[in-house]
Amino acid sequence: MTQKTPETNRYWVLSSRPSGDAFDRALDLEEGPIPSPDDGELRVRNLYLSMDAGTRMWMTPRMDSYQPPTPVGAKVEGMVIGVVEKSRHAGYRAGDLVRAYGQWADYSIARPLASYVAVVDRDESDLRDYLGLLGPNGWTAYLGALEYGACRAGDTFVVSAAAGATGSAAGQIAKIAGCRVIGIAGSKEKCDWVTGKLGFDEALNYKETDVADALRDLCPDGVDVYFDNVAGPILDAVLSNMALFGRVALSGLITSYGAEEPVPGPYKFDMILMRRLTITGFFSPDFYRREPEINPRMRAWRDEGRLLYRFDEVEGVENTVAAYSKLFNGGNTGKVVVRVGDL
Amino acid sequence: MTQKTPETNRYWVLSSRPSGDAFDRALDLEEGPIPSPDDGELRVRNLYLSMDAGTRMWMTPRMDSYQPPTPVGAKVEGMVIGVVEKSRHAGYRAGDLVRAYGQWADYSIARPLASYVAVVDRDESDLRDYLGLLGPNGWTAYLGALEYGACRAGDTFVVSAAAGATGSAAGQIAKIAGCRVIGIAGSKEKCDWVTGKLGFDEALNYKETDVADALRDLCPDGVDVYFDNVAGPILDAVLSNMALFGRVALSGLITSYGAEEPVPGPYKFDMILMRRLTITGFFSPDFYRREPEINPRMRAWRDEGRLLYRFDEVEGVENTVAAYSKLFNGGNTGKVVVRVGDL
Repeated sequence: MTQKTPETNRYWVLSSRPSGDAFDRALDLEEGPIPSPDDGELRVRNLYLSMDAGTRMWMTPRMDSYQPPTPVGAKVEGMVIGVVEKSRHAGYRAGDLVRAYGQWADYSIARPLASYVAVVDRDESDLRDYLGLLGPNGWTAYLGALEYGACRAGDTFVVSAAAGATGSAAGQIAKIAGCRVIGIAGSKEKCDWVTGKLGFDEALNYKETDVADALRDLCPDGVDVYFDNVAGPILDAVLSNMALFGRVALSGLITSYGAEEPVPGPYKFDMILMRRLTITGFFSPDFYRREPEINPRMRAWRDEGRLLYRFDEVEGVENTVAAYSKLFNGGNTGKVVVRVGDL
Repeated sequence: MTQKTPETNRYWVLSSRPSGDAFDRALDLEEGPIPSPDDGELRVRNLYLSMDAGTRMWMTPRMDSYQPPTPVGAKVEGMVIGVVEKSRHAGYRAGDLVRAYGQWADYSIARPLASYVAVVDRDESDLRDYLGLLGPNGWTAYLGALEYGACRAGDTFVVSAAAGATGSAAGQIAKIAGCRVIGIAGSKEKCDWVTGKLGFDEALNYKETDVADALRDLCPDGVDVYFDNVAGPILDAVLSNMALFGRVALSGLITSYGAEEPVPGPYKFDMILMRRLTITGFFSPDFYRREPEINPRMRAWRDEGRLLYRFDEVEGVENTVAAYSKLFNGGNTGKVVVRVGDL
């Protein structure tokens, strides 16, 4: 890992609103003093940065997203794992290991009064799991499959971005629940991984296969649950193959996060009525309070070897934008994290 | 009412697939012998024909609707109230009053083995109610408001086609449930009716008002439940004003039933994720078994004067197409029925 000067902080700034996936032209790495927390804040020395496609929306000017846009010129925000170095909040102490909304930087300022900060256990076998199976991606997979998708033994369960940080876990949880699981992913390698290692029943490479036709052949009785991370044309392909009273658990819209023009909804929207479907949107900021309920189950499945998870780890804060770009160009398998420090 | 020759049957035939709302050029009234039921069938002398926008889809060639298309050259089908004249099914007797899928005609052939036929009570105060509050429109209003929309006291409830056969009942049921109710309709008269007579809190004339702007003003805390009968631009206008964790009960898609090109879904589809919405499609063919549970409540509310219902009654089978067209040109207030015979 590239060594930084210890007395300074390197951090990414949103210099302009990115066009499409050209993040390298819109984000700049700058260097400045190590930040000092104000009252109610913490200084966190970052260990890992979590790369999450949903943060793409914060880089747009849109005001109707689930959180206000990042101002141009501000530091780029995201979830991190790190160590509290200095606390000005009574609930946290120096030395605490935390999962928090921080900045893409060597050091974060975390604001427990304004956003989520959880103390996690230093003895966890792999601290990165707090950004994976035991963090927002894992909770989203768990609740999307079992609650919003309401998958049951015998159901046919389809998941897009199947080799991704959320989809790979969702498909395995559906297998544990007794479903037949079909993954949709963008390369032969990803498809081989989910069927060969994760136990999915089938996988479709959408770059080489007509997904609608393939699902028609694979699922003559229709798809009971679709766990969607992408929306766009793949959502249309699955909607036309849903079973009566099927459920669509809408976890992400990666195809439209960076859109500058209004994006039409699925052309098969009318299937919601024709097939009497339920579509539910959900995501992890709503699930923090459920961590104590979900994580013990996830840990048990992981430790039994029933829930595998892969990290795509990039070294060094200076490579954050390259790591982030993988989420949009299909370059990653599993969860992308950036390692910026050591415990 | 125009008198027919008693020995013949007048019936509407789908001569070609209608373009848009030009039903008069695609449907022809023909005359032939009174039909004879085969084994398992009934001959029903029709009293009332129910005009329902959903039947528009059966006139298209599309195979992925909720029921197969009517073949060109076949009689037009729809729900009727009538008297069984001749039964070749052990469950029905001559003289039974029934609600059934029949034909737009003086006489129907009803097929209890293939489609829904229910014996109803001759002593009901207004037999037309079996096509309104006590029939598919009423059940759709009831379940859409209370179950799919899950409306609760204090919720803000918005309904489109608010002066229509389903919307007018849905809004009143939401009022009974303690909601603040805002109707969307296409004329001042309709708006005045739902606020003045039905007790809605507000009404928006979408032909003269920007619905998105108006809802933003009226509902600063957002819309909790949207009961949608129309989809299209009004759905977009409401989606952009939904409250977090809101519910959209999707009862109809009248704006796209006759479309010949693929119709995009709502441009605000991403609000499902941003606001964590649930959208559920539902309709009456799924609700027949719940009639014994729903109708006593509907009857009680009606008899207490809390649930008003208006019929837009057209006389004579020869005027069926004119009656049906009202559903698409905004010409009706309340439930459109065609009276074709007397008990």
